[in-house]
Amino acid sequence: MRLVDIDDLEAITLGATLLGTGGGGDPFIARLMTHQAIEDNGPIRVVAPDELDDDDLVVTVAVIGAPTVIIEKVPSGPEFVAAVEALSSYLGQEIKAIMPVEVGGMNTLIPLTVASELGLPCVDADGMRRAFPQIEMTTFTLAGLSASPMCLADEKGNKIAFEATSNQVGERLVRGSAMMLGLANAIALYAMTVRQLKEAAIVGSMEYAIKVGDLLLAVQRNEPGSWEAFYKFTEGRTLFEGKVIDLDRRTTTGFARGTVVIEAFDETSRTMRIEIQNELLLGIEDGRTVITPPDLICLLDHETAEPITTETLAYGQRVRVLGLPCASEWHRDGFLDVVGPRAFGYDVDYVNFGGN
Amino acid sequence: MRLVDIDDLEAITLGATLLGTGGGGDPFIARLMTHQAIEDNGPIRVVAPDELDDDDLVVTVAVIGAPTVIIEKVPSGPEFVAAVEALSSYLGQEIKAIMPVEVGGMNTLIPLTVASELGLPCVDADGMRRAFPQIEMTTFTLAGLSASPMCLADEKGNKIAFEATSNQVGERLVRGSAMMLGLANAIALYAMTVRQLKEAAIVGSMEYAIKVGDLLLAVQRNEPGSWEAFYKFTEGRTLFEGKVIDLDRRTTTGFARGTVVIEAFDETSRTMRIEIQNELLLGIEDGRTVITPPDLICLLDHETAEPITTETLAYGQRVRVLGLPCASEWHRDGFLDVVGPRAFGYDVDYVNFGGN
Repeated sequence: MRLVDIDDLEAITLGATLLGTGGGGDPFIARLMTHQAIEDNGPIRVVAPDELDDDDLVVTVAVIGAPTVIIEKVPSGPEFVAAVEALSSYLGQEIKAIMPVEVGGMNTLIPLTVASELGLPCVDADGMRRAFPQIEMTTFTLAGLSASPMCLADEKGNKIAFEATSNQVGERLVRGSAMMLGLANAIALYAMTVRQLKEAAIVGSMEYAIKVGDLLLAVQRNEPGSWEAFYKFTEGRTLFEGKVIDLDRRTTTGFARGTVVIEAFDETSRTMRIEIQNELLLGIEDGRTVITPPDLICLLDHETAEPITTETLAYGQRVRVLGLPCASEWHRDGFLDVVGPRAFGYDVDYVNFGGN
Repeated sequence: MRLVDIDDLEAITLGATLLGTGGGGDPFIARLMTHQAIEDNGPIRVVAPDELDDDDLVVTVAVIGAPTVIIEKVPSGPEFVAAVEALSSYLGQEIKAIMPVEVGGMNTLIPLTVASELGLPCVDADGMRRAFPQIEMTTFTLAGLSASPMCLADEKGNKIAFEATSNQVGERLVRGSAMMLGLANAIALYAMTVRQLKEAAIVGSMEYAIKVGDLLLAVQRNEPGSWEAFYKFTEGRTLFEGKVIDLDRRTTTGFARGTVVIEAFDETSRTMRIEIQNELLLGIEDGRTVITPPDLICLLDHETAEPITTETLAYGQRVRVLGLPCASEWHRDGFLDVVGPRAFGYDVDYVNFGGN
């Protein structure tokens, strides 16, 4: 067990923002919620799956919506507890632990807050170890687990429980209702036993986020060898460095979509185009696809090494494009159907970035 | 108690079609379902509220969607039972009787079918005694009852349970999900005790539909004095007779909307315009509003006296426009907020058609 205290929040938040790959909502908002929860209830217990009973029921909890909306309509808190309690009541079963569905973006910190408020531990595991725009895009789906029943709640007291015939159908239904409720709601989903979790989840993703956050903090402090340490641990590399010369963003059908074009500092004829669907998804350098989902594209401010979210992207920004390989748990049969480029509607082949 | 047998279906269906005021789905499709249910399970028990215990739980069940879609995507049946069972399970309570939410359109016959399949009685009462396009437009809402929890089900096995902060919000949420599920789904809602039902429902609406159907059958058979008998019982009158000269229909945001213009047989300078939102809602004669919701506008074929639904409306049709006063139960404090013309977005005053 690890106790997450207020001192840990800086690294977790930074790691979560990086793994948000430009999306996943602004973790700095969630950080305020977590900070308050720790002040109210003390340090938060983060446990390994082995510390729980195999039959214990675990659920994931998240904010769902478009980051562009979430940043303006800050989740207020009680709707997350309401969503978890609605799911527990719907199942008629007691929930023993909370888990993030994605360690990446604000959905890294929200489960910590909810765990604290419910007096439950948070499991050090998730279904993405990054952010993805759709709720079915998890290693849970890959392992054949159902996201349903899913409980959606808003800050006004509206609650909706879904039982969908597939996680893909469930995503469409939940997204539709979230649009009706204002596009920034709480959802509890993927109820599973610890036994199922051990098979299906990416274990250790919370620790991974903290470690990545610590390493990036060292980079930001310009510590010697910090970039090398970061690259070594993440097995990532810098893909491109340049200036934002074109930016197109729009919020449609419940998603923040867009395209950003970056021009190299040194050679103005070299450009990288990144396609956005809540997250940075596809990296195309001079017409050649160089990185695809589920591998990670992260944008950093070139001077401060601060991660840039798609909402804060701006024309003229000087940026570094990082590529990180996805969690090895993704490399299982059928993963491209769940999170490969074609799952996002991009007609390109997967580029095996990490060499897995 | 009345036993509804196959012989009763002609009058019920005709009465339901008339009270559908052009909408409410095509009852002839529902009639096939009810016919099958009676063949399978015998005559259907229709009971007065007094025949049940005051504490018995009653729920309404309906098809939700746009009539233009429902006519092409015939409800298959099991989803209605699934919706009721999901609601029972959600409440953790046994349901003792089924009730129509609207006696008008196919939602008159579907509750009979569901009652038959579940081996339950159907209560002779409803919340509209006509069809309305939105689920909150009931005397139940007027009496302060909540439509939630509401359970939506489709023919594929998807199920959604809603707890909305108001019946108006609930309508929007359900409509949104119904659009996602293909716009012709089953919904169970307005769970209430018989005690509440007695206060809030329009009692006797099923008998009313049968009686109206019988009277219209007599008209169709050209029996002497049949129109007089029809007018006497319904307190209605013919508002206009003429030919359809303009027709505009579109399915948008989950509703079939449109406008029909009828030109008088005798004087071509006289026209009546009727505004449609699933149902025929507003009658305007030569620029003067002559009938408004909740009173009923019914279109009949001028020769056969067969009710015309908005889907079967056609250019050149020769029609009779009937006006019928709504059930007297509507004339309670606040009814215009729930079903007056402004509740449909029409900026006109209520015309007290029935003189209540």
